[in-house]
Formats: sequence, C-alpha cells, structure tokens
Amino acid sequence: MFTHQKPLQFTARPDAPDPAFARRFQEVLGGKWGEMTVAMQYLYQGWNCRLPGKYKDMLMSIGTEELSHVEMITTMIDQLLDKAPPMAPDDTTGSTQASEFGQQNPQQTIVNGGGAYPHDSNGVPWSGAFVTASGNLMADFHLNVTAEMQGRLQVARLFHMTDDQGVKDLIRFLVTRDHMHQMQWLSAIEELKADGLDGVPTPEAFPLEEEFDEFSHTFIQASDGEAATEGSWASGPAPDGRGDFRSALIEAHGQIPELAPGDPRLYGTQELQETKGLIDKAKDALS
Amino acid sequence: MFTHQKPLQFTARPDAPDPAFARRFQEVLGGKWGEMTVAMQYLYQGWNCRLPGKYKDMLMSIGTEELSHVEMITTMIDQLLDKAPPMAPDDTTGSTQASEFGQQNPQQTIVNGGGAYPHDSNGVPWSGAFVTASGNLMADFHLNVTAEMQGRLQVARLFHMTDDQGVKDLIRFLVTRDHMHQMQWLSAIEELKADGLDGVPTPEAFPLEEEFDEFSHTFIQASDGEAATEGSWASGPAPDGRGDFRSALIEAHGQIPELAPGDPRLYGTQELQETKGLIDKAKDALS
Amino acid sequence: MFTHQKPLQFTARPDAPDPAFARRFQEVLGGKWGEMTVAMQYLYQGWNCRLPGKYKDMLMSIGTEELSHVEMITTMIDQLLDKAPPMAPDDTTGSTQASEFGQQNPQQTIVNGGGAYPHDSNGVPWSGAFVTASGNLMADFHLNVTAEMQGRLQVARLFHMTDDQGVKDLIRFLVTRDHMHQMQWLSAIEELKADGLDGVPTPEAFPLEEEFDEFSHTFIQASDGEAATEGSWASGPAPDGRGDFRSALIEAHGQIPELAPGDPRLYGTQELQETKGLIDKAKDALS
Amino acid sequence: MFTHQKPLQFTARPDAPDPAFARRFQEVLGGKWGEMTVAMQYLYQGWNCRLPGKYKDMLMSIGTEELSHVEMITTMIDQLLDKAPPMAPDDTTGSTQASEFGQQNPQQTIVNGGGAYPHDSNGVPWSGAFVTASGNLMADFHLNVTAEMQGRLQVARLFHMTDDQGVKDLIRFLVTRDHMHQMQWLSAIEELKADGLDGVPTPEAFPLEEEFDEFSHTFIQASDGEAATEGSWASGPAPDGRGDFRSALIEAHGQIPELAPGDPRLYGTQELQETKGLIDKAKDALS
Amino acid sequence: MFTHQKPLQFTARPDAPDPAFARRFQEVLGGKWGEMTVAMQYLYQGWNCRLPGKYKDMLMSIGTEELSHVEMITTMIDQLLDKAPPMAPDDTTGSTQASEFGQQNPQQTIVNGGGAYPHDSNGVPWSGAFVTASGNLMADFHLNVTAEMQGRLQVARLFHMTDDQGVKDLIRFLVTRDHMHQMQWLSAIEELKADGLDGVPTPEAFPLEEEFDEFSHTFIQASDGEAATEGSWASGPAPDGRGDFRSALIEAHGQIPELAPGDPRLYGTQELQETKGLIDKAKDALS
Amino acid sequence: MFTHQKPLQFTARPDAPDPAFARRFQEVLGGKWGEMTVAMQYLYQGWNCRLPGKYKDMLMSIGTEELSHVEMITTMIDQLLDKAPPMAPDDTTGSTQASEFGQQNPQQTIVNGGGAYPHDSNGVPWSGAFVTASGNLMADFHLNVTAEMQGRLQVARLFHMTDDQGVKDLIRFLVTRDHMHQMQWLSAIEELKADGLDGVPTPEAFPLEEEFDEFSHTFIQASDGEAATEGSWASGPAPDGRGDFRSALIEAHGQIPELAPGDPRLYGTQELQETKGLIDKAKDALS
Repeated sequence: MFTHQKPLQFTARPDAPDPAFARRFQEVLGGKWGEMTVAMQYLYQGWNCRLPGKYKDMLMSIGTEELSHVEMITTMIDQLLDKAPPMAPDDTTGSTQASEFGQQNPQQTIVNGGGAYPHDSNGVPWSGAFVTASGNLMADFHLNVTAEMQGRLQVARLFHMTDDQGVKDLIRFLVTRDHMHQMQWLSAIEELKADGLDGVPTPEAFPLEEEFDEFSHTFIQASDGEAATEGSWASGPAPDGRGDFRSALIEAHGQIPELAPGDPRLYGTQELQETKGLIDKAKDALS
Repeated sequence: MFTHQKPLQFTARPDAPDPAFARRFQEVLGGKWGEMTVAMQYLYQGWNCRLPGKYKDMLMSIGTEELSHVEMITTMIDQLLDKAPPMAPDDTTGSTQASEFGQQNPQQTIVNGGGAYPHDSNGVPWSGAFVTASGNLMADFHLNVTAEMQGRLQVARLFHMTDDQGVKDLIRFLVTRDHMHQMQWLSAIEELKADGLDGVPTPEAFPLEEEFDEFSHTFIQASDGEAATEGSWASGPAPDGRGDFRSALIEAHGQIPELAPGDPRLYGTQELQETKGLIDKAKDALS
Repeated sequence: MFTHQKPLQFTARPDAPDPAFARRFQEVLGGKWGEMTVAMQYLYQGWNCRLPGKYKDMLMSIGTEELSHVEMITTMIDQLLDKAPPMAPDDTTGSTQASEFGQQNPQQTIVNGGGAYPHDSNGVPWSGAFVTASGNLMADFHLNVTAEMQGRLQVARLFHMTDDQGVKDLIRFLVTRDHMHQMQWLSAIEELKADGLDGVPTPEAFPLEEEFDEFSHTFIQASDGEAATEGSWASGPAPDGRGDFRSALIEAHGQIPELAPGDPRLYGTQELQETKGLIDKAKDALS
Repeated sequence: MFTHQKPLQFTARPDAPDPAFARRFQEVLGGKWGEMTVAMQYLYQGWNCRLPGKYKDMLMSIGTEELSHVEMITTMIDQLLDKAPPMAPDDTTGSTQASEFGQQNPQQTIVNGGGAYPHDSNGVPWSGAFVTASGNLMADFHLNVTAEMQGRLQVARLFHMTDDQGVKDLIRFLVTRDHMHQMQWLSAIEELKADGLDGVPTPEAFPLEEEFDEFSHTFIQASDGEAATEGSWASGPAPDGRGDFRSALIEAHGQIPELAPGDPRLYGTQELQETKGLIDKAKDALS
Repeated sequence: MFTHQKPLQFTARPDAPDPAFARRFQEVLGGKWGEMTVAMQYLYQGWNCRLPGKYKDMLMSIGTEELSHVEMITTMIDQLLDKAPPMAPDDTTGSTQASEFGQQNPQQTIVNGGGAYPHDSNGVPWSGAFVTASGNLMADFHLNVTAEMQGRLQVARLFHMTDDQGVKDLIRFLVTRDHMHQMQWLSAIEELKADGLDGVPTPEAFPLEEEFDEFSHTFIQASDGEAATEGSWASGPAPDGRGDFRSALIEAHGQIPELAPGDPRLYGTQELQETKGLIDKAKDALS
Repeated sequence: MFTHQKPLQFTARPDAPDPAFARRFQEVLGGKWGEMTVAMQYLYQGWNCRLPGKYKDMLMSIGTEELSHVEMITTMIDQLLDKAPPMAPDDTTGSTQASEFGQQNPQQTIVNGGGAYPHDSNGVPWSGAFVTASGNLMADFHLNVTAEMQGRLQVARLFHMTDDQGVKDLIRFLVTRDHMHQMQWLSAIEELKADGLDGVPTPEAFPLEEEFDEFSHTFIQASDGEAATEGSWASGPAPDGRGDFRSALIEAHGQIPELAPGDPRLYGTQELQETKGLIDKAKDALS
C-alpha cells in the first residue's frame, strides 16, 4: 500500500522556462530507460518475487523511490513549459528562440496545456513492454544494472545540454542516485551468488547435461573482423569455471530447409502438381 | 556486407506439427527478448561503435550469428504449423486437441498461411524500441548479459513445454549458445575495465565532483520492509571503492511544488482571480 | 514523495489457481481502463495541476490509492498463476482444463515465470497514451467519471466469469471503490462549476462570439435513422442555457476541394501539362 | 451503408501555406482526441448498440458527421503543406522561417508527398485503442462528453497558434460543433436516466448488496494534502442518494502478500531449500 | 461530406453465434489488411490527390464503399458474440465447446460487452501506420492491388474456417468485391501509364542520368541459392525497355566504415588516448 | 546461415555532418517503407516459402542484400551526427543552424550517443507489423513492387533535401537498386503467371463459383464524383478475361441491423422490459 506526501524528494525548480529542454527531459521520464520504466520495473519485480525477505523488500523500496523521481521530473518539465510561445517568433527575434521553437514538442501545449506526460522525447508513448519482471532475480538484476547505466548516461548527456543551474541541480541528484543504484544491483548480484540462489549460466538450475558441449565455449566468427578473436571471450578461461573459450568460423550444421506443401485451403504458392492435386481434393471436399 | 548460404546453422526439424507450440515459440523469435532483438541490437551496437577493433568486430560476428538463429526458429515454426486445423475439432476428439486449438494464434494461418512472423507469442509486433545501442559499450554489454539471461530463461522454460525431441534439440542448441553468450559479455565487461575504457559508475568519465555525496552511497528505505537493510547494498564496502554503503529512511529534501498560472490561451484550470484577469487580458489581446 | 508499506489495502487471495482468469484479470490491471491507467492519469493530472488546493490534493490522494489497487491485482494474478500447466493436458482430462489451457496467456509463464505484467488481457502492452492530463480539470474530470464507469463495468463483468470466492471478494472491493470514485468525480464537476472555474461548453473562457451561431445548437442528421430526432438533443432547451436545440439534415457549406499541384520534387501525380513543365524546370534547377 | 459527396461540410481553405501549423493540426486529426477517434468511436458505439431507436440512430448520425470533419482537416493540412521547403533555409532568411523549418514534420513531405495522414502532431500513428464502445451507453456517453471537451480545448488552443484567417474560420466551425456535441452528450445522459436505462453508479444493474458498504462512500486520504477533504466529495450527500460522503486515512485491510514457490521448471528465484528439493524432483521427472 | 443509411450493403446475419470465429473475423476488420485499412487508405489517397478527375473521384467512391464493409463485418461479429460463455464450460461439455472457449478473445466481452472493435484477431489495435497515401498514384495503386489480394486471401482462408452459411455468404460477397477491386487497381495502373502520368521505374520523372548504370539491371546474388538466376529477373529483357537483366555475385564497393570519435560529452566508448584527451578538454570546458 | 564482411556494399561517407538530415534519413532506414522493412519482409517471405527453387532462392538473395543497405544507411547517419550541437545556438549564429537545431531528433544524441536506430524520421519505432509474408507469392510480390516504389519515391524526395555530394551518391545507389528491384518483382509476377502458379484474381484457386457474379465486375459509385466512371475500371474488358466492367450506384442489399439483447451479465444498454426481466433472472441465478 502506498502513501504520498507533498514535498518532493529533491528540489525541482528551474531558473527559467525552456521549451526545447522540456521536450528533451521527457526522455528520462517516459523513454525506454526513463523513470517510469525503473519505477514500474522494480515494483513488478518486487510484487512478483516469490522469495520473501531482503530482495523483495529492497525491490519495493527502490521502486517506490523511483516513483518520487517520476514526480520530480514531471514537476520540472511543467515549470520549463511556462511561457512556451504559441506561435513562431517574428523575424526580429534571434536564432536561439528560433531554434527552441523548432525543437518544441507541440503536444506539451496542445494536449497537456503546458504539462509533462508519460511519453519520450519524440512524443512516443511509454510502453508496458519496457518492464521486465521475469521471476528470476539474477536475470532481472543484470537488467537493472544496465537500466541505471543507461539512465545515468542519458542524464549525464542532458547535463551538457543546458546551462540552467536549477535543472542541472536536479540532474546532479539523478546522476548521483543512478550511481548508487548501479552499485546496489551489482552488490545484489554478488549476494545472489553468495546465497547460492543462482549463478552463471543463468538459470543455473537448468541441467547442463542437456547442452551441446561443442557450442558452449566457442566464440563463433560470422564476420571477417579478425580483431574479434583478440578478446578474452575467444580464448582463455571462461567465467563459468568449466573450461576455456575457443573460437571457430561459423559452420552450417543443419539441413537445407525444405517445407512440406501447405494446406491447399491456405492458398499458399506451392509445386504445381501438388497444388493442382490438392486443390482438386479440396474442391471435392468442399462440394 | 552480408551473404547467406542455404544450410541452417543447426538442425531445425520437429518430430510432428504442434500449433500451440508454434504460437509459444514466437516469443523467442519476435518477443522483447527474442532473437530478432539480439540480432538487431548487436548489429546496431556494432555499426554505431566508434572504437575500431576487437569490440566492434565481435559485435558484428555475434549479431550476424543471431540472424542465423532467427532463421532457424522461423523454419521450426513453419513446420510446427503444418496441418494446423482450420476449425474447432468435433466432439469426438480429445482434450489435447481441444487445448491446442484454443492456444492457436489465428494470424499464423489467416495472415501468414502457416508461417512465422516477427511478433511475440501473443501476436504483438516486434518493436524497434527493443533495440538499445547507446554508444557506451559498458552500459550496453550489461544489457547484452541480461538479454542472454532472459533468452536462456525463456528457452529453458519452453524446454519443459514440449515433448517433441526435434524441437527440444533446437532448444538445447539455443540454451547452449545463450550460455556461451552470457560468458562472452561478462568477459567483455571485464576487458572494458582492464582496457580502462569505462568503469563503475558508468559512464566513469562524468565528473564525480558534480554528484551530491550525501546520496551516492545511501540505500533509501521508501518501503517498510525491514529485511531490505540486511543486504550488502545497505552497509559494507561499495563496488566503486569510494566508501561504504549506508541506509536511511526516505526524506523529503525538496519544495512542495507550486506551479505558476499557465498561459490563459491554454485554458487550464487556475485561480479564479488570476484566471479572470488573464482571460480579460487575453480577450483584449485577441480583439 | 511516496512511501510504501507491505500489507495490502485489501485482501487479495484466491481460493485456487486459475490460469484462464489470470489472463482475463490483466484487463483491469494493464488494459486501457485498468488500474495502471487511473493511477497514472490521476497522478499526472495532480502533478500538472496549476491550481493549488483541494483539487490538486484530491488528485494526489486518489492517484496514490490506485497504485495500491495495481498492487492488489498484481498479487492476485500471481497467485492465480500457481501451477499453470506447461503443456496441453492429455486426453484423460476434462473439458474445463482443456478450455483453460486454451485461454492461457503464454507470456505469463514464458516471460514472467508465473507473474503479472502491465499488459491487457490479450498481452498488448499498457500505453502512456492511455493517460490524459490536459490541464483543464473540467475536461479531465469527465474523463475520470467514464474511467470509473468503464472500470466498474469491466470488474462487474469479471464478477460473473469466476466462481472463486477469494477473487470475487477482491472484485467486490474494486466495484465498491469504483462506485465511490464515480461519485467523487461527479461531485468535483459540480464543485468546479460552483467555484466558477469552468462550465459548459468547456473551456468556458473561449470567447463564444468566435462561434458560428448557426451550428452551435443544431443536431445534424447525417444518417437516415429518424428516431435520432426524438431525443432531447434535437429539440428543447440546451444545457448551456443559451437557446434551444434544433435539428437539420446535413448540408455541404464548403468548397469542392481542389489542391494546387505539388512541388515536382515530391513526384506526386498531377496534371500532365503542369507536371511536365514543372519537372523541366526542376531538372533545369538541378543542373 | 455510406455515401459521399464532393463538397465539404464547411470551407477549408487557408490564406497561405504554413508547414509548422500543418504538423500541429495533425493533433486534432489523428491524435488521441482527434476527429479520427470521435468518428470511429461513435460509429462503433452505434454499430454495437443492442438497443434500437433514438440512441443508436443518433450515434450513426454524429459518427458520420465526424467523418466529414476528418475530411475537412485533411484537406486543410494538404493546403498548408503547399511549398514546404525541402531544405534548411540559408542564412539570409529570418527567424520565422527558421522556426517553421524546425517545427516541420518530415514525414508529411518524405512519406506523404505533402499530405495529411492519420497520425498525431508528433507523427505517432492513430491507434484503434483510442476507440471505446463498451456496450453500456451511460459509460460511453460520459466518454463522449470528455472527447468533445478535450477536442474543443485543443482547437481552442490551436486558435491562438495561428494568424491565418482561413484556418481560424475552420477552427471556429470545429469549436462550435464541439460546443453542440458536448451538449448533445450531456442531454443524452439525462435522457438515459429519465428512460430508466442506467444510473449512478454505472452499471446500476450490478447488485449493490455485493458491495462493501464501508468503502462505498469514503474518500480515502492516501496523500497528506489536507485541502482534499474540503471538497464536496469528502462530506455531505453523495450523488447516488444513498448516504453521505465521509473521509478516512488510508488503511491496510489486507495481508502482507507471500507467494507460494513457483514451478521449478520456470526457474524463478525462491527459497534455497525448496528450490533444491524441487529442482531435484524436476530433474528426476525429466529423466 | 458523408451520409449514412441504415440498411447494410449486403446481408450480415450468421446462422448461429460462434465466439471463436468472432475473434478470427476481427482480422479482416481491424488487421493490417482489413477493411479499416482499405477504407482509410483509399480515402486518404483521394483526399491527398492533387490531380482532379477520374482517379480522385474513383478513390473517394471505393473508400466510401469500404466503410460499408467495415459496418457489415462489425455487425456480423456482434451477432457471432451473442451468448459467448462467461466461464470455462464444465467437464460434461464436449471438445468443440472447450476449443471455442480457448480461442475466445476476452476483450470482446470484458471490454466491448459482446461487440467488435478496430483490433486484429489477436486483439492488437489497428494502427494509422497501416495507411499509405504517398501522393504518387502509381506507387499507391500497386499497394492497393496487394491490399485486395491479401484481403481476398484472408477471407478465402476464413471461408474454410466456418460451416455457418450466413457467415459464408458474407465472405462470398467480400471475396467477390476483392476480385473486382483487384481488377480495378490493375486497370487503373494501365490507365496511369496510358495517360503518361507515370511509369516504371516509379517515379519516372526522377532523372535516370543520376542512377549508376552498373547497378540498374543487375540481379545481385547474396545467397548461394543457385536457382535464383534461373528466373526472368536475372537475364533477358527488363520491363523498363532499357536493357537486359544480368546477374552478379554481391561485391563490396564501399569502405570499411570507421567512425570519428564522438563528442566526449556523449560518453561513448572510444580510443583510450583520444578519450582521455577529450575528456580532459571537456572537463576544462566544464570548469 | 549468414556471414558478414566489413567493407560496405557501397560507399557511405558524407561530405559534412548534418543533424537535420540525420533525422530525415531515418525514414528510409526504420520507417514503414525503409530498408529494415524490405530486408525482413523478403527474408520472412523466403523462409516461409513452401515452394523450393528459384523464387525462394531469389527471396533469400534480395533479403540479404537489403541487410547490407540497412548497414550503409546506419553508417551514413552515424557520420551525419558527428558534432551535433548539444544546445540551442546563441543568437550570433545564422538561420540555417537554427533551422537544423530545431529539426534535430533528440534521441539520436540523448539515447544513441550520436547513432542511428531502427526508428522512423519522427522517432517512432520500426514495427514487425510492417512485414507481410502471406505464403502466397502473387500477393506478396505485388507488395514488394510497391515497397520498392515507395522506397524509391522517398529517396528521390530526399535527393532534393540535401546538397551533400557524399549523401547524394549513396542516395543515387539506393535509387538505382530500387529501380532494379521494381523490375525484378514485376518480372517475377509475370513468371508466376507463366508457371501457372497463380493469377488474377489472387488466389486463383479459390472456386469462382462461390462468388456472386452480380458484384464481380461492377464499379460501385458511392461518391458523387462523376468522372470516376470515365476510367477503364468502369466499362470495357476486365483483366480477368471473364467479362466487361460495368458501373452502378451503390445500393443496400442487406438488412437494417438489429441486434439481439446481450447477456445481462455484460450490463449493456438494452430495452427496458427485457433488461429488467433478464437482470432479475440473472440476480436469481446469482443467488
């Protein structure tokens, strides 16, 4: 169960409106790697977690914190949209204003009346498909690491796209929390291993005897870029402790696919003889 | 530049058709974590990679290999769709057939004429949004680890959803390659660090002095699940080597948000006095 | 800022698993009119609200409550998915089990490992486009009324699709809250009027003198269904208190559209003479 | 059955081309609340209406009229796109032209050759998910009210985003029809009540004795914004005539959710002991 | 401008309800190649057509006719949904009913109350992206041919998926109109050529001297399937009358791509030396 | 099985960066008619083709070639994004730079770090729904013709939107290949006919005796544009060789649709008497 209090987790107050940045900041709100995604992803992982205890509790805490980030960014965008110009500026204005008018997202004014929404920086709606909660924490925590890395990367880039100190302060807070959260997931991964809950390859419980050993440690070269085999993934010990990497040119081990003729009632293109025979039969069957 | 040869990378031949499994197998073809995603993701990461050499070459190799996986699964689904029943079976048939008819994806016959397509197991189209190629290999390689984990998890689950030995053989091949590829990305992450190209927090080049130290190592409790603080992410040394984790209850450090009245020409709801004054002004401006 | 506590707002515990209902219940979680939508819609309306006070505070309260509903339904679906059969049942089982296998959503097991996700009952992802926060409370509160009506309608229908008393109890709670919330929005609409903040037509501040009186109270018959003019919308006093409804057959008041030839560099199909002349000019321009 | 005649319902002729406004006008054509939505929504509501007579006939009339609005806006956008500049203007041009170039939607020229399409002002395609036709007219007519309010709000905003008298004239027509249509749906709602077809709460036929009285009239405070309880939704008579509103702090009435361990063949993370035991059993079962 | 009359263009009355077919029939209503698509596609092509006369008039006629098809299929689906079972049948019922329950689309009852909607047979919403109106009639009429072919193919397949004579009669009508419409577009393509409005390659007005002759008639073998060169596309006269087809193995004519280092403020992975230097500069620039 | 080599099929090197064109060029990469679509469409058609030999082999060759086009355009966009300005230019810069800043796609920098992605020119993700592989080559090859026409049209338009000779050279290559590929599909269509595999109407194997002759050759006028009947599709011999075209005004041949009352448990709006009776029964049934 959730409760809300009115003060924000951190200050969200720009020095001045900026309609172009209001568009861009949507990316870390409603983009694939934005705060909507991490909030919902951690909460669904928490709700679906079948293991009671520290992992489940931690997921609920961080998911709830991310909701507060959604709130701060939304509030910031709302203020950046104050005084967004309704029309193209006249020719007496300068290039900066012209640039910013061009970069504007028209939905922020026409649809939202000067407000943020759960869409990305191009106005594409946030999608529930951005959320993964697989039930396997090892797989999901690796996703969470990259989510915090992609997120920190994006806010770090945005840091250089504005001179507004108020905006930069909120970005600095977000960069810091993404730093913390990267470490949190990396620690949790180590703890999952230490607790014996899973390992590499994930899921570790799948019986390895079902694998084809020939392919389990081989880097397959399907491109002619030769430097690829200089990497540690092409020779030397593999992280599962079960042998060494090797490399090989890609080879075909399978059949040349030939498909059986389809049901003539599907009217696919197939061998003339067969088709005719089958269609006749089908016609008979129809009558 | 790409070339193609007709034999498959591995055998893809079911013992018998199975329309219900033909629907389910779409998940690892055109789902968020399916082969379409990893093929395209690795290729775009390779194409966009601004660092020539082993990483870029490796990305092109594995991306190209994944295209061959797309081909195998497509070929398998095509064969599983042979003899898909056009109509509900009559009452003389058994429960297995009734179950399978119910689970069928009608587009595989009506739209594709008994064929696979780049959609997931519920028929939702594959989306270009599933691909991330951020230009930062550290962030992206962590995504690639989880992609292989989610992928291996899904095929491991599918392994228990069929008794068909032909299908199981292809799944065993896929499970094995996902094992290899998990290790490949884990090794590549270590190599990025060893090469000094990036680290934790990612991106490492963003100046840490811009962060707020108060928040960089603190696990924030926003939920009352107390076990969360038992984890290694709440106390003890943090993976960045820059201090210890601590934990604290979530606190509000920001303002209670109050937004300025909007432009009256946007007709948002606002304070009566202001609204009236502004609307009068706007009306004057209009006339 | 948000906080979370572990007990649920209301009990969510089914008597028994039911994979078919687990699919169906997704509709009121991640469908267009599900709890994800109302939670996010009310929160965004609250955050974007430029009028401090009772409306903004109320929006934050109800939006936060709806998050707790998301949590309860997710928890219920997770339990309905216990023991979902991985394979089609054999022929010794009965029709009920065959029916339920057919109705299953394969992603709930293959992707989520037996868990809920922000998608609808057909597995289509929830979309940020479902959220409207226009900045105009009168317009949005009418949307909120229908959201609660559509929501109550759907849970009322679901009530008849299960015999599970545990599930029915949660549905009864949801039906009740949707009852309350319908009344809440209806009251808030009256209060907006009483406070003079807006009225009919919405937005009331748009100058009526800009309208064409000829069309402001006329029901236009564009179909030959004559009963349409028997309604109160075709004669008698109109709700804006500015006159009576009337009705008229649809008439064309505009031009027959004729478009100017396009830029020949866009290669659209146009008049032969013009095209040739323009293309020659374009070719000249190119050289 | 439909027929078409060439003259438009109202004049759609701009004074001059304007590529930036051509992008923005797409919102009320192919956006969530645009004419495509209302046309299709009213028609599907009409087609699906199981009650013959005035409501069904009225739905068919207004749905058909909205198709004529789709046509007018499309025609207007086509003309606004005449002479859209293919390339960025040179440095001798002024800020207005630079602003407009920036605001352009590139698909209107590259894809459509200078034409409109069923997409919103950011180029996101119109979605069939925007249409709701629930079979319950009371719920749907409330949606229709807000559709006309959101629509009128958007064209009212667009009115201030152009100086073109031809465009403004069409907008004035649209504003007027949205005024009429708001009143039409409000009247129809009253008529549904008068005819005894439904009421509040909707659907009224759902047996109220299934509700939990404790929650049917209580405004639940989940946020600390105290002004929320000043509203008429927190005390005083409720619109259903069945009692008074009251308010209460949110409370947890449900269990702390604990999920059963999942099927080990789904490889979710769960209790160590259980997992091992179950995996051993699963392995036995596999062999 | 459009008008509507109540009788349908053709009878749409099933012999009996059939919830499984009600799901499947959605494909030709709201699927990519369904009636929604052709109705909207032809209308947008007509509206955007800059050439007055027979082509534009014809587009408006057929687009309007297709609206009447949308209406018939919607009406049919509504009737197929009468008596859709709310719950899984008990074990005393037979396999047919179990099959049909499994195949049901739950949204048709839960969301639509027993009605059709603009979604495909898997419940994925119809998309405005399905519509193409490029402004070039030659390109678009070829799309229209395939739209009628894909449409006829789908209804021909559906013909074999039901025994209901009422449904089959409507399908027979649709098959017939798709037959007519295929011929209509093929004739119109010939007429465009005869009128000199465009030709092959389309657009014919693009100056051929800008092409690279080496590649304009060469079938490039990028796969080792040798039979490909037996086709008429690999030797013999080409349809543009400008030479003979030839074939050649694919060859690389371009550079090995090497990208310049990116802006260090984007934190992409790049050469160590460069990165460090650039980051130092960036840090200097920041301070 | 696929392999890759590092040199590009054709040179992809711009003379200079151009962030506005980098956005626009996305259309032919990840738009509906871009290279992602044709690559995937031809490959899926090839994989699903049940007829071994020249058609299947040809599909694999051209599909593979299109992958190389995806690679070239991606590489070009990457280079066009070098030096994309992070912030709006200051007022000392000129209109060209201001225009280009406005036209920029913010995701190309914020998300991709200066790279291309499988999205269109407005940033909407590529969709698997763009791919059609129906199993019927006649239907699909007509789609392939229009795909090459739409593609050539778009690159021809883009040719006039840049002055960069490097970009123009790649466009010239693409225009040329689209020329070739149009002819390839047109030849293949003729060859399908010559091989007797299908014809007009497609699918030819569907028994014509099931059609209604009255409607198979009639152009139906549903709009009052009289010029429509001047076309060859309204009189004279039809392409199927089975008679002459004729034309007729649209007529209603079907019933006025009246739907049966729905299941009262779906709470749809219906006749008062019926509703009440049915609801009473339902209530009885509930108790």
